[in-house]
Amino acid sequence: MREFNFGAGNPDPTSFPARELAEAAARAIARLGESLVLYPDPRGYAGLREVAAERFKKNNGRDLPIESIALATGSMQAISLVCQAFLQPGDTIVVEEYCYVGSLGCFRKFGVDIVGVPIDNEGMDVDALAQTLKDLAARGVKPKFIYTIATNQNPTGTMMPESRRHRLLELAKQYDVPIIDDDCYADLLFEGAAPTSFYALDPDSVVYIGSFSKILGPGVRLGFFAAKEETLQRILHWKIDGGTSNLAAYVAAEYFKEHLWGHITEINAIVKGKLEVVKEELAAHAESFLDFSRPKGGLFIWVKLPEDVDPVRLQAIALERGIRYGSGKQFHAYAQDIKYLRLAFGYPSIADFREGLPLLARCVQEARGVTVSATT
Amino acid sequence: MREFNFGAGNPDPTSFPARELAEAAARAIARLGESLVLYPDPRGYAGLREVAAERFKKNNGRDLPIESIALATGSMQAISLVCQAFLQPGDTIVVEEYCYVGSLGCFRKFGVDIVGVPIDNEGMDVDALAQTLKDLAARGVKPKFIYTIATNQNPTGTMMPESRRHRLLELAKQYDVPIIDDDCYADLLFEGAAPTSFYALDPDSVVYIGSFSKILGPGVRLGFFAAKEETLQRILHWKIDGGTSNLAAYVAAEYFKEHLWGHITEINAIVKGKLEVVKEELAAHAESFLDFSRPKGGLFIWVKLPEDVDPVRLQAIALERGIRYGSGKQFHAYAQDIKYLRLAFGYPSIADFREGLPLLARCVQEARGVTVSATT
Repeated sequence: MREFNFGAGNPDPTSFPARELAEAAARAIARLGESLVLYPDPRGYAGLREVAAERFKKNNGRDLPIESIALATGSMQAISLVCQAFLQPGDTIVVEEYCYVGSLGCFRKFGVDIVGVPIDNEGMDVDALAQTLKDLAARGVKPKFIYTIATNQNPTGTMMPESRRHRLLELAKQYDVPIIDDDCYADLLFEGAAPTSFYALDPDSVVYIGSFSKILGPGVRLGFFAAKEETLQRILHWKIDGGTSNLAAYVAAEYFKEHLWGHITEINAIVKGKLEVVKEELAAHAESFLDFSRPKGGLFIWVKLPEDVDPVRLQAIALERGIRYGSGKQFHAYAQDIKYLRLAFGYPSIADFREGLPLLARCVQEARGVTVSATT
Repeated sequence: MREFNFGAGNPDPTSFPARELAEAAARAIARLGESLVLYPDPRGYAGLREVAAERFKKNNGRDLPIESIALATGSMQAISLVCQAFLQPGDTIVVEEYCYVGSLGCFRKFGVDIVGVPIDNEGMDVDALAQTLKDLAARGVKPKFIYTIATNQNPTGTMMPESRRHRLLELAKQYDVPIIDDDCYADLLFEGAAPTSFYALDPDSVVYIGSFSKILGPGVRLGFFAAKEETLQRILHWKIDGGTSNLAAYVAAEYFKEHLWGHITEINAIVKGKLEVVKEELAAHAESFLDFSRPKGGLFIWVKLPEDVDPVRLQAIALERGIRYGSGKQFHAYAQDIKYLRLAFGYPSIADFREGLPLLARCVQEARGVTVSATT
């Protein structure tokens, strides 16, 4: 049986620059190798922090001093370090109601109360956030942070407009709650630029989190975080790993020095093409019963299932047909069996979508109890 | 002024295999690169775990299944994950009274009571350990673990004989306390083999920690831990970093596939030669007033200062002369200003020792208040 993995948020494999990365590795290690007998800088290799700063400048039009940046083993380590630095069991945090499963899993390990704020087509609903913060304050609860993916949100693929970002920042300041600005999809843009990041708007009350996983590959395990010095130190206090791999950082920095924007342009064109196919197939085979988000970038599209579908049954049916996707429940702040699913469109091939999505549409119909003919 | 850095536990830089590593990187990335679009296995790249298992087999004569091994960002991350998995503030742990500064710093961050057990020329004094465990039990305190570096101990350079290891294991079992077996200097041997590791003697009650930092370089940030499945899962629960870098692991595994034992033999010959020079210089210039350990491997020699030396004054004098070393206080379980210092002999050159150690001997004399002529 053919398998369709629409579940994993990996980048496109065919455009992976294996040859250029191998060449960069050979150059960088020949030049810098001997320094691998030393421990990395606690903030990580400056050469890769410069790449992070260059991206930030291009995406936000503002300088990000490399002293404010620390590398991490992927953005996931940055998130877990933030948890170690900010959270005690019983604390409360605020997230988008539909939230990245990896972050949710991390937060849950720290034993905190997770409060989900509804999310609409423009990201976290700030009116709902205002009400949530007000309600929490009335109960004497001050959240330790607001975690948000404002650009190409995972799982919904939404983009928060700049006006809403300003409002969210105001609320965060009013209630004195820091923002964890997970911007790991910042470079995956198919339509123009993204609005300015929270960190660029107000570095003092924001921890910025970035990643090289989405523009190179998660197997590289390189991400970073940025914050004002006091907060950076508070987070670095828990980074007890002797530093992020200089070997990995040397290789990535050498590659990006030449290829950063070229590679981003290339993968965005490819992934945008895949998203178009996903939208076409969903429209052609499921327009009458599936609603879906309209991502301007990123790796994910969020699909609303009909009310009469049992999502647990759907997933069982789909798995029988070899189709994997992210269930709504995985991404729900309270782990409810919501009638949504997430499709990741970076890794599968166009042929996978052309064949797999009509099949998925039939699975949905089947899960509704609607009889479907073979030609549907 | 010439600087002498006898402080940092780095390997020899001149033997760093930059060319071979660059070649290995080019081969590995060309072959495996595309798979970097995927997340690593939670236990890390199997190819590098196989190298870890091969080392373990050669050093211990026993198989270590790669399923029992998980890679980490250096052995330091393994230690901090063990702390996250095992410790709550207020808990008690047992260490050698003279203990690796990095581990001590980590333990302190977790807010635990650190109990130091005296250490003699053969490592942790097991009679003292028996008394310590008995005293703690009498107070109703059960330590969460015993952390020990039995082979080429840091900072003392001592090697615990196998008979003592058996006794320590018996005590650990009697009091039901797990052992954290930090074996990161396992391969740095100048005189025959090391005694069998605790983990090889009793994998069920031991967490084994290993490193590739000492046989390649700490900038690579690759280490590992091994434990029975239940304990491994308990530790992996806190490894919230998306996995250890496959990029770094691919490169290291490809290099070690050809060069593991050749490189270890080469660096051990070099570092043994440096240790001989250190001993010669100390004997020639300080025999009457400095006592020092007799390492059979590793990177450190532990120097006992005369009773009439103020170690704080000595360090100030030495720093003025451009000499860095590890102060006894850094390595003391209770951070006492003990009359010891640690010299690291892997990284400095032989010329550094020939010039710097006579100078250090004069600093010691000066710190005693003894007048020293220029020709001493």
